[in-house]
Amino acid sequence: MRFLHTADWHLGKKLHGFDLQAEQQAAYEQILKLALDEQVDAVVIAGDLYDRAIPNETAVKQLNSMLMDMNLTHQLPLLAISGNHDSAARLRTGSAWFKATNFYLNTKLSQAFTPIVMGDTQFYLLPYFEPFEARQYFEDDDLRTVQQAMVKIVAAMQATFDPDKKHVLVAHFFAAGSEHVDSETQVTVGGLNAIPVDLLAPFDYVALGHLHGKDALQAERVRYSGSPVKFSVSEATQTKGVWIVDTDPFKLTFKPLTPIRDVRVLTGSFEELTTPAFYQQQAQDDYLAVQLTDRRVIPNVMQALRAVYPHIIELERVNGPVLTNNPATKIDPNLDPMTLLAKFFEQTTDDDLTDQQQQWAQTALTAAMKEEG
Amino acid sequence: MRFLHTADWHLGKKLHGFDLQAEQQAAYEQILKLALDEQVDAVVIAGDLYDRAIPNETAVKQLNSMLMDMNLTHQLPLLAISGNHDSAARLRTGSAWFKATNFYLNTKLSQAFTPIVMGDTQFYLLPYFEPFEARQYFEDDDLRTVQQAMVKIVAAMQATFDPDKKHVLVAHFFAAGSEHVDSETQVTVGGLNAIPVDLLAPFDYVALGHLHGKDALQAERVRYSGSPVKFSVSEATQTKGVWIVDTDPFKLTFKPLTPIRDVRVLTGSFEELTTPAFYQQQAQDDYLAVQLTDRRVIPNVMQALRAVYPHIIELERVNGPVLTNNPATKIDPNLDPMTLLAKFFEQTTDDDLTDQQQQWAQTALTAAMKEEG
Repeated sequence: MRFLHTADWHLGKKLHGFDLQAEQQAAYEQILKLALDEQVDAVVIAGDLYDRAIPNETAVKQLNSMLMDMNLTHQLPLLAISGNHDSAARLRTGSAWFKATNFYLNTKLSQAFTPIVMGDTQFYLLPYFEPFEARQYFEDDDLRTVQQAMVKIVAAMQATFDPDKKHVLVAHFFAAGSEHVDSETQVTVGGLNAIPVDLLAPFDYVALGHLHGKDALQAERVRYSGSPVKFSVSEATQTKGVWIVDTDPFKLTFKPLTPIRDVRVLTGSFEELTTPAFYQQQAQDDYLAVQLTDRRVIPNVMQALRAVYPHIIELERVNGPVLTNNPATKIDPNLDPMTLLAKFFEQTTDDDLTDQQQQWAQTALTAAMKEEG
Repeated sequence: MRFLHTADWHLGKKLHGFDLQAEQQAAYEQILKLALDEQVDAVVIAGDLYDRAIPNETAVKQLNSMLMDMNLTHQLPLLAISGNHDSAARLRTGSAWFKATNFYLNTKLSQAFTPIVMGDTQFYLLPYFEPFEARQYFEDDDLRTVQQAMVKIVAAMQATFDPDKKHVLVAHFFAAGSEHVDSETQVTVGGLNAIPVDLLAPFDYVALGHLHGKDALQAERVRYSGSPVKFSVSEATQTKGVWIVDTDPFKLTFKPLTPIRDVRVLTGSFEELTTPAFYQQQAQDDYLAVQLTDRRVIPNVMQALRAVYPHIIELERVNGPVLTNNPATKIDPNLDPMTLLAKFFEQTTDDDLTDQQQQWAQTALTAAMKEEG
């Protein structure tokens, strides 16, 4: 059995206001090509297909089209679960019909105990669940955490193990040892809900979703695939991709994906970053977290930088806050209003007020003073 | 060919704040039973399955469960379209898989020209559409109205008619001669978007959705099924149900549905309506639009009526507004505040202030005057 392991597609997600639809589509096309080139027997999607419970219509169309493309057009068997970002009730629409074409989409805890048998493997598709669902399912009020629930869940799955088969768990939770980044919201930090990797030892492989970096967990047979696209600056240095998993003999191969626009941190002084000799060497179109080394006031800094780098997603002063109180920029507040305004204008724009501007300013100031008086 | 024609389920709809889920479920159970008892070859649902583009999770679960029940459990072929209340993009989720079990759900204009052949009949499933979609589909910028578009649509459908078959159109629009009621929002009144019944003559039967009364249109072979449940007071006198349609020989039979709670208008004086001898003869639990014949002030009138009739959805004074300015109720506004309050209290409650209440009122008035002063 050979399958592709991906997760955390988060369709509908925006990156600091930028739509990622094209980026996610490009990643999908590569995933599909990999699945076909590698002749996998199935594609595993370990939760968070959507970014939110009520995705926008564009995201709905996009996911529907991807699933139809893989499963109906290319006859790829699909093994998927809902994640914490999905609405289980909404995502499950149509799933009763999907099985006929080997598309298994589990969104309820109760579905997790009937393994899907494909080739030499029993797949257990465990959707994201809350402890109360485990309490209901097992009729056990003592199950207060996901970890407690997982002890029972793994035992119940083991009871259905066919010893002649391999056993793969597909799940969406926070496994112990994982490393957090910014775009994984709603993860309980502190270990309360962390699943110890040891608990997952009965499985030949655990295909996880939830954390966005493939290296979040280094256990040999318990793996996050990570998201196919970078969703935050904290993921800037991660390599995105999917796992190709062979069950017999066991083999794990990471296949990287190439983004249209990378998410990167770009550090330098304003002058450096806006010098053609520098920026012409850059992929200017990338999503950039700009770290400015300057501390001086730079007029219209974001606008000026965006003229060169259109997809800036963050701007930070890495050497401390802008210096507005140094002698060069200090303005005596006791000056008369017109002089005060002229100095402020000069300081922020590096230009003097024109005669016309002076006239406007004077009119406005007179009006304001009349109102006050 | 025999099929059941229903429409306008509006799952997720509320009636003046009251959840209709149970009512809609009861109607569905009767529809299913009718379909099975009458041994229909298909169930037609002519749009507005949901009440809104983004239905709540309860409505999503309810529709999914109904569709699974009919199509997967009872193997009933389904022929459905999206209505103006549905989000076509959301409703179509899974529909590519549904066809395998004879569940045809059309949500795009372009799908309407491929007839579904069942038994002796070609079914044309035309979802609700906007004129711009027709302009795009026909590449004809002159199509400004649904009526103009329908001329082209009917012609395109006719071009695919098999002369040996019957031809049934399933659609969701406002056909000329229809009669409006309150719960059909977004209907363009005035005829701009009305489809003349003559235009639909090529079809052996037109199964319509959109208007909620089965008698909205009296054409013999162009029919609204109406909604299975009453959704507004203006539908109070309608008989709700479904059509059983035989194609050969053509026969139309209306099958009424029985609500859990009816929507009714209840007229009478307050005294009459709250007299046990009267209300014990009533289905007190119905959804009631109460028309009070009194004009006098009745203290806590809604609360008093709801104690007898818990599901009041409207309260109207049918003999004109409450008389507050007749000599008996007029209060001289120049009285001192405490006397004014006491008189007002007496008038609205028919009780005098108790000593304790007088004390409270005096304390509050003193505090208020202190604040003002």
